[in-house]
Amino acid sequence: MKFSKMFIPTTKETPNDATLPSHQFLVRGGFISQTGAGIYDYMPLGKIVLDKIRAIVKEEMDKSGANEVQFGFVTPLSLWQESGRATTMGNELLRFKDRKNGDYVLSPTNEEAVVNMVKNRITSYKDLPINLYQIYTKFRDEARPRFGLMRGREFLMKDAYSFHDSKEDLIREFNLMEETYKNVYNRLGLEFRVVEADSGAIGGSGSKEFHVLANSGEDTIVVCDSCDYGANIEAATRKANKKEKLETISQEKVETPNCKTIEEVSNFLNADAYYSMKAVIKKAIFEESSEVVVFFVRGTDELEETKACNAVDALELEDASEEDVSKAGLCAGYCGIVNLPENIKVFVDNELAEDNNLVCGANEENYHFKGVDLTSMENIVYKDLVAVQEGDLCSCCGGKLSYTKGIEAGHIFQLGTKYSEAMDAKFLDSNGKAQPFEMGCYGIGVSRLVAAVIEQNHDEKGCIWTKATAPYLVDVIVSNAKKDDELEAGMKIYEALKDAGIDTIIDDRTKERFGFKMGDFELLGFPYAVVIGKKLKDGIVEIVDRRTLEKEDVSLDEVVSKIEEKLK
Amino acid sequence: MKFSKMFIPTTKETPNDATLPSHQFLVRGGFISQTGAGIYDYMPLGKIVLDKIRAIVKEEMDKSGANEVQFGFVTPLSLWQESGRATTMGNELLRFKDRKNGDYVLSPTNEEAVVNMVKNRITSYKDLPINLYQIYTKFRDEARPRFGLMRGREFLMKDAYSFHDSKEDLIREFNLMEETYKNVYNRLGLEFRVVEADSGAIGGSGSKEFHVLANSGEDTIVVCDSCDYGANIEAATRKANKKEKLETISQEKVETPNCKTIEEVSNFLNADAYYSMKAVIKKAIFEESSEVVVFFVRGTDELEETKACNAVDALELEDASEEDVSKAGLCAGYCGIVNLPENIKVFVDNELAEDNNLVCGANEENYHFKGVDLTSMENIVYKDLVAVQEGDLCSCCGGKLSYTKGIEAGHIFQLGTKYSEAMDAKFLDSNGKAQPFEMGCYGIGVSRLVAAVIEQNHDEKGCIWTKATAPYLVDVIVSNAKKDDELEAGMKIYEALKDAGIDTIIDDRTKERFGFKMGDFELLGFPYAVVIGKKLKDGIVEIVDRRTLEKEDVSLDEVVSKIEEKLK
Repeated sequence: MKFSKMFIPTTKETPNDATLPSHQFLVRGGFISQTGAGIYDYMPLGKIVLDKIRAIVKEEMDKSGANEVQFGFVTPLSLWQESGRATTMGNELLRFKDRKNGDYVLSPTNEEAVVNMVKNRITSYKDLPINLYQIYTKFRDEARPRFGLMRGREFLMKDAYSFHDSKEDLIREFNLMEETYKNVYNRLGLEFRVVEADSGAIGGSGSKEFHVLANSGEDTIVVCDSCDYGANIEAATRKANKKEKLETISQEKVETPNCKTIEEVSNFLNADAYYSMKAVIKKAIFEESSEVVVFFVRGTDELEETKACNAVDALELEDASEEDVSKAGLCAGYCGIVNLPENIKVFVDNELAEDNNLVCGANEENYHFKGVDLTSMENIVYKDLVAVQEGDLCSCCGGKLSYTKGIEAGHIFQLGTKYSEAMDAKFLDSNGKAQPFEMGCYGIGVSRLVAAVIEQNHDEKGCIWTKATAPYLVDVIVSNAKKDDELEAGMKIYEALKDAGIDTIIDDRTKERFGFKMGDFELLGFPYAVVIGKKLKDGIVEIVDRRTLEKEDVSLDEVVSKIEEKLK
Repeated sequence: MKFSKMFIPTTKETPNDATLPSHQFLVRGGFISQTGAGIYDYMPLGKIVLDKIRAIVKEEMDKSGANEVQFGFVTPLSLWQESGRATTMGNELLRFKDRKNGDYVLSPTNEEAVVNMVKNRITSYKDLPINLYQIYTKFRDEARPRFGLMRGREFLMKDAYSFHDSKEDLIREFNLMEETYKNVYNRLGLEFRVVEADSGAIGGSGSKEFHVLANSGEDTIVVCDSCDYGANIEAATRKANKKEKLETISQEKVETPNCKTIEEVSNFLNADAYYSMKAVIKKAIFEESSEVVVFFVRGTDELEETKACNAVDALELEDASEEDVSKAGLCAGYCGIVNLPENIKVFVDNELAEDNNLVCGANEENYHFKGVDLTSMENIVYKDLVAVQEGDLCSCCGGKLSYTKGIEAGHIFQLGTKYSEAMDAKFLDSNGKAQPFEMGCYGIGVSRLVAAVIEQNHDEKGCIWTKATAPYLVDVIVSNAKKDDELEAGMKIYEALKDAGIDTIIDDRTKERFGFKMGDFELLGFPYAVVIGKKLKDGIVEIVDRRTLEKEDVSLDEVVSKIEEKLK
């Protein structure tokens, strides 16, 4: 391709709201253009990158044996009512009415659509398993679309859905998808990590996320320094943090004037904060109601909100307001498990289950209890509520856990029968008995990957595409395209590289100077440039490596073989 | 691919509303599945066909030098307000509000989006011409979605938009697109016709349609039997139909009791209907008003409604009601050009312009005028209003015109400056003067082509895909897949065909009988089948040609070369 024939509108202007490098460079490089909140046009170079990623995803999915389909982007709301998600998806599900007042949605995901496709068409275990996938547009009406392609509203996703006659077969496919995804990210040239994950609103049990490692990642990932363990902070577990058990003492109410925080109480009582209970009061939001809930973790721990939300099975948790707290009969700063008002839902972290001598609030201003013995109490609901900290120990190997930042670029789920049961989609098993399908679902954020590649691969000058994602591998820069000899030599190299099967673009623009062309090369991030300049008279051109910005003189007849070598 | 691993849910059930063969067979063959009015899912075989067509369109567009982009499917309504189409597009433009009450539309076409992309990014004539295209989802909220993929609401379209510094350069690109489109339809293996067309709501001057010829086509096309001339009936012209000119006589009012039709008047006056004026009273609908308009054509001609609508520059024409007619002061059955109420807009067909002795209504019950001389009247607006009839003569060569039926599968337009002016998109010409871009736009209905292929290529048993569009070229049918020798021979042939680069599927299903598999082959329409059956013991298999259903015995070692020969 020739620069002179391609629409590549680079600019020095950075959008006001662009904080991430990928957002800045993709806009400045003329890859994408924003048309509305979270809605982007792809300009020619951006479209090529998107398609290269899409093609790799498709190849690997086909290799796994999955069948490609395409669901309507617009789907009737009735399907979402069948599954129950018309209510649970909230405002992210964009609804609208057509000219005949029919209710429709813009698909944010397609569990309902795929169950609708398979229902009554696959009726026997003999036709199982099957894995159906598509790479198609999604729309999620995010409250805060931001970060360019990273968190858009209209985006491209690969979503796959598998159907099985048993949990075992589902797990087999789930593992196959994990391998397939690893192949995808490896082929894209990305550093990534597979981590345990929370299943979120999709539902089901057992899920893994694929994170592209990058400092700007929105997700905190917990990784072990000695073994393969990795998990999203929302799902991370640790080896229980256990200190010596104290002697059981009798429970006693003590005055603790103005001691509202764990630190204040511990200092006042001269006690180890480890042996105290920290109360976190939240307002749990359900489909049609809300209620105040209290979570207890150890005084030295922090509550993990997603775990807490799952514990109470709410849509989301909000901070409880002062009014919520007092209406619920609670006493902020002095909330404890003893003498709590009845009807308040309480969850206690697993790691407190054996504790017998704890300090906690007395549900009365300026008072705490000492010697609280949880082992003597009945009906306590214990859950994993704790946020893993850096330095905690790995539950698998005892190694040290630390945090890293990741961009979630893939997620695989064992859904089980959640959707097939809700939508009454069944097959006949080998005994002739009707059973709901076991299902898995598997997503890759294709357009998000465009941004993720750049988050992981850039410098202060611009993009550095990996070989698999670069719109062109080589940029032949004709320093002065008005000079016939330079242009001619450039065209020869360009043709020779193309003949060698290497995606090449030539910067043949007559109206731009060398410095401008070099700036575009650095901004656009093609892996290599071949610069035709002053040394041409000696039969020499320069190869520039975009990642290192190192330059190397090579003779004209070596150019193709040198580039081939570098691309290996 | 193996049938046993692919989701191909064929069925004997035809949807109630499916009148067209393509609709029936695509649903019965498990290519597509309806999820809402005019909204279809593509199942695996349908997705392959769609992608094959998409790939050919992309290749030819790339070959023409156009750049592929992708516009947001969701676009802000504000863009449509800028161009003025927020009002003129009517209910086909689906609007909705997002969670923040912002106004958006589902893109039915992208003139606004492309002008928005190019505006302020291309600022000099030096960066022109450019042609930007995408192959992406569209939504048009059709009043009557029907005929399966033929007139859906969500569909896949290739839309291209070119920008030029002169009309001449636009015409050059327009012609290049015509050649590009011909390449596309030729490669798809379709019989088609390029015809002159009305520009409709897209606007601009000069447009051509590409029609796939099929009996079920919704459009009537006028074609010449001697030259290349072809036109949509809406735009067709003819050699003026001229009889001998009569002598001028003086105008006279005559009583014509109960003679309301041209036939009644002609019989009563014993005159040739050719020398009379037929009045057609219509109600023209504008953006914010409507009015009664009268069109006159020769007594032996018919009014072409689209031409009439363009003449008055209305959004659409409706039949005038009795009330409309009397309110306008007109007299149904006796409407004529003499003594018409003032303020009524009147248009007269071009072919009447020289006539000097005509019969027309007197705008008075039971009276007509004779001897009406149009050449003596002033301020008459003449337009081409006539519907070309079969047997009329070609305006290019004088050959005979006839009707045929076509499916509109492509349309190219010279838009001119309609959108660039409305949206203030300008470039600096070589004199440094700001000029609005000259634009062209070019559409191909990609998903409609899936249906069009079948409308042109089917029999009573099912689909007959062309070689370029077939999901697989060969179906290796193992008559009884429980027999090891048959399955083994089938697999060998399947592998050999794949090794020869031929897209092949093997019907290896153990649970289905031969008759069922043959029925699926006929319904699904792969070009050839290789049947492994009883003669296998003699080293013989059968090749079946789907189009002719002819069978041919071939020896095992000849299969691949025979198939290769047939596919040439």
